[in-house]
Amino acid sequence: MKALVLFSGGLDSSTCLALAVKQYGPNNVTALFCYYGQKHSKEAESARNIALHYGVQLKSLDLSLIFADSNCSLLKQSTQSVPLESYDSQLKNTGGKPVSTYVPFRNGLFLSAAASVALSLGCQKIFYGAHADDAAGNAYPDTSVAFNEAMSKSIWLGSGQQLSVEAPFIKSTKAQVVKTGLELKVPFEKTWSCYEGGTRPCCRCGTCLDRIRAFELNGTTDPLLGE
Amino acid sequence: MKALVLFSGGLDSSTCLALAVKQYGPNNVTALFCYYGQKHSKEAESARNIALHYGVQLKSLDLSLIFADSNCSLLKQSTQSVPLESYDSQLKNTGGKPVSTYVPFRNGLFLSAAASVALSLGCQKIFYGAHADDAAGNAYPDTSVAFNEAMSKSIWLGSGQQLSVEAPFIKSTKAQVVKTGLELKVPFEKTWSCYEGGTRPCCRCGTCLDRIRAFELNGTTDPLLGE
Repeated sequence: MKALVLFSGGLDSSTCLALAVKQYGPNNVTALFCYYGQKHSKEAESARNIALHYGVQLKSLDLSLIFADSNCSLLKQSTQSVPLESYDSQLKNTGGKPVSTYVPFRNGLFLSAAASVALSLGCQKIFYGAHADDAAGNAYPDTSVAFNEAMSKSIWLGSGQQLSVEAPFIKSTKAQVVKTGLELKVPFEKTWSCYEGGTRPCCRCGTCLDRIRAFELNGTTDPLLGE
Repeated sequence: MKALVLFSGGLDSSTCLALAVKQYGPNNVTALFCYYGQKHSKEAESARNIALHYGVQLKSLDLSLIFADSNCSLLKQSTQSVPLESYDSQLKNTGGKPVSTYVPFRNGLFLSAAASVALSLGCQKIFYGAHADDAAGNAYPDTSVAFNEAMSKSIWLGSGQQLSVEAPFIKSTKAQVVKTGLELKVPFEKTWSCYEGGTRPCCRCGTCLDRIRAFELNGTTDPLLGE
């Protein structure tokens, strides 16, 4: 059995990678990093370091041209800056619609690309680190449980029942993902979540606020902030 | 209302494009051509000619690197040649599994890429020319009705209910698609379906055999063969 892990170099997918390696062994796991045109390269750097840590093969795909017409605030070409506030505040401004950091159908595209690569490599499983807090209301509709179920079914059927998606955290909070990661000794100090590409996390964007809180709920602090 | 048509330059998606143009007008329709690493460039040439015929914007994406590890017989790097026999014969050899011309999860990937582009361009609809004969048993599982339903649901949910998929031929035979195309005066002589990149269709691969029969069932012959 071989597995492909959809891997961003962030906290969630690194914990997901740790689970896959524990279950399949490093030689049977490939990590897939997708570049989508984000403003910084911190995630790619983290992905390399963590793949090295676990001794797994890392594959990278550049999918940025697919988003060339998008004005999502995470993208290089965007005229918008990343909002420095919580998702709750942002959703009040968007009237419940996806937020400016929603990259159009990104997770659907990443899962589909992962399916194509996984089938090409003879993998039977895609590991996907989405969790229950990810959807953040309707901020990111392509991370909801309902989306994940439909997409998993698409991959199962569209692959001729050769490939399935495992999303071990789909019903867990981010705090529970951190708990699992702490137990598995995931090198969180090597991961990167912040939407800004600074030397340290900005501690103000939506993803920073969520990450800080997830560590707090585990009675600890993010090792990235303690350095 | 704006629409994106997933467009290969073949008979089915050209008829689909004709329907979209009829419904939305050429200025509100974008055709998306995805190159996936196939052995010839006849499809790209057809796509350009047909987009020009209808006066719609044509966007092209090169997704071939995603399939770099696949040995599918349609791909440049493949060690296999395209089988010159019907899908029924091929399925007997594969024991009902996808055939060697199945490009891993290609349609799922194309639909996902189309969703990302459509959302970026402010389209509310993706037109997709899959039809009932496409699945050809289980030769192409990523064209079945069940797959299409799951994938359409994924796109609807994952886009925050902003984007839907319209597959007008999903329950039609290829002969019925040809019938619609003839009625709409689709320039079939400009389309390309054959898996080989010759100057004329090979008339022996699975897709040629299906195309020839679809014209026969309409009491006519393929204009590509009459030239």
